[in-house]
Amino acid sequence: MTSQPFHGVLVPVLTPFTQRGEPDPGRFVAFCRWLADQGAGGLSIFGTTSEANSMSGAERMTLLDRLIEAGIPGEKLMPGAGACSMTEAANLARHAVDHGCGGVLLLPPSYYKGVSDDGIFAFVSGVIDRAASPALRIYLYHIPPVAQVGYSLDLVGRLIKAYPDTVVGLKDSSGDWSNTAALLERFPGFAVFPGSEIFLLDGLRKGGAGCITASGNVNVPGIRKLYENWRGPQADALQAEITALRKALQAYPMIPALKRIVAHFHNDPDWAAVRPPLVPLDPAQSAALLADLERLGFTLGERPRSMAA
Amino acid sequence: MTSQPFHGVLVPVLTPFTQRGEPDPGRFVAFCRWLADQGAGGLSIFGTTSEANSMSGAERMTLLDRLIEAGIPGEKLMPGAGACSMTEAANLARHAVDHGCGGVLLLPPSYYKGVSDDGIFAFVSGVIDRAASPALRIYLYHIPPVAQVGYSLDLVGRLIKAYPDTVVGLKDSSGDWSNTAALLERFPGFAVFPGSEIFLLDGLRKGGAGCITASGNVNVPGIRKLYENWRGPQADALQAEITALRKALQAYPMIPALKRIVAHFHNDPDWAAVRPPLVPLDPAQSAALLADLERLGFTLGERPRSMAA
Repeated sequence: MTSQPFHGVLVPVLTPFTQRGEPDPGRFVAFCRWLADQGAGGLSIFGTTSEANSMSGAERMTLLDRLIEAGIPGEKLMPGAGACSMTEAANLARHAVDHGCGGVLLLPPSYYKGVSDDGIFAFVSGVIDRAASPALRIYLYHIPPVAQVGYSLDLVGRLIKAYPDTVVGLKDSSGDWSNTAALLERFPGFAVFPGSEIFLLDGLRKGGAGCITASGNVNVPGIRKLYENWRGPQADALQAEITALRKALQAYPMIPALKRIVAHFHNDPDWAAVRPPLVPLDPAQSAALLADLERLGFTLGERPRSMAA
Repeated sequence: MTSQPFHGVLVPVLTPFTQRGEPDPGRFVAFCRWLADQGAGGLSIFGTTSEANSMSGAERMTLLDRLIEAGIPGEKLMPGAGACSMTEAANLARHAVDHGCGGVLLLPPSYYKGVSDDGIFAFVSGVIDRAASPALRIYLYHIPPVAQVGYSLDLVGRLIKAYPDTVVGLKDSSGDWSNTAALLERFPGFAVFPGSEIFLLDGLRKGGAGCITASGNVNVPGIRKLYENWRGPQADALQAEITALRKALQAYPMIPALKRIVAHFHNDPDWAAVRPPLVPLDPAQSAALLADLERLGFTLGERPRSMAA
């Protein structure tokens, strides 16, 4: 097993769109820099929360180009390289490696349902062969509630065995703690990141690497506080605090809600834009969300100068 | 409502891959020509049966380029332009229009689940705006068993109303006759194609335009015979015959089974190759499939000269 480039609180970064619906590199770079400044352990750009599947491969590659040009260090980046076709996924993975990214997050192919472990194994194998780089590090992206197709425990074991220096971790967004626990037990040294901070403390206590969580977009400091103090006496209280915020967020469609929060606290209304098929929160939802956050004493803090549009 | 370019037996064309796993334009052109010679009313290249989602956009566009270069008339083609991102879908739709294709088949965005009709409407609207061509004709592709996301009856009505000259038909692969019947009743003049020949006769009796069916890859003549004689005394018997074959095929994973049949009857083993995440039939499945076909007296006929690899 290779050394692990990522740990801590990783953020699947929201993607800002312009009023015309195009990805907005300026806001994206500024937001990534802000998340890094807040202590994010890595930036999982182009995940589900990033609306990556609502962008073409070319759009994703252009945004990554712009991040690197702006001086964001590649080793802090774990771009999603997922696509239904292994050729597209391999292109995205290769592009990430060529930019020095610390790893890529790889969805299984999700169009056909009920596919076999053998078929998914062949897909991952095809991506690795075609990306053709010893520098490639793959984090499997297990998110059956959305992708429907997932990585079974047996399949994860087969992939680690076949590609010990390449398949080095997994983001578990199953929402099923028993699956995360089984991964941690069966594959020591394999970097397992729960897909929600709700499981952060439980995960760390079993050898987890941190978490990769949508709410990191608005709460890196809170989640990081638990990550840094998880052996201390306040750990359970810190977990309860971040769980409360997460549950408040989960009462709304998560991606539009997070964008609404950034738009509100950074006083930048365009940030609320989502790409179809997602739709923004309606005014009543927005008001209710902000009221819920106020009750929890939540604030995103001042908009930093680097966030200027 | 515009005039309808397609009717009859349309085939979602299988995509051949080389031993190295690349799309094989030579075999693809020959197979498309063969299907046209057999009487296909149109070629729905790049559908689910075509493993289109297992190819990159560039691979799909290259195959279409090659078909057109080979003299296959664009007006006979209805390429799938589906993609999870509206920008990718718009690129594919525009490429098809620029090649004179009679229409495109458009999946809804299928990554996010539980999305709203408003979100899917905005997606289709975005594709139409970005493709930016009055020549574009869209056939909605409703296949909830695979895509999970689908076009509701209300949404279809909204799209027809907003884009009467562009959104002109639908392939209904729901497998739910009551949905097909409701589409035919509510939207006269809208071209509704059941996604299986099992519903061909029922569809034609209610004003359907034909069918777009995977088994067309191996049975255009049989299905066409019913299409041409559906008002005659033999219609129910002809329907029973093609239904029996369809049900035999459905006992196996459909795409690998169809490719196995082409490989067998055209004596061209490489045709059996599928792309991950699909896997080919194993030897026992292959033998059982061919035995089932023999019992039904099925044959694909001789491999025509134009099918030379």
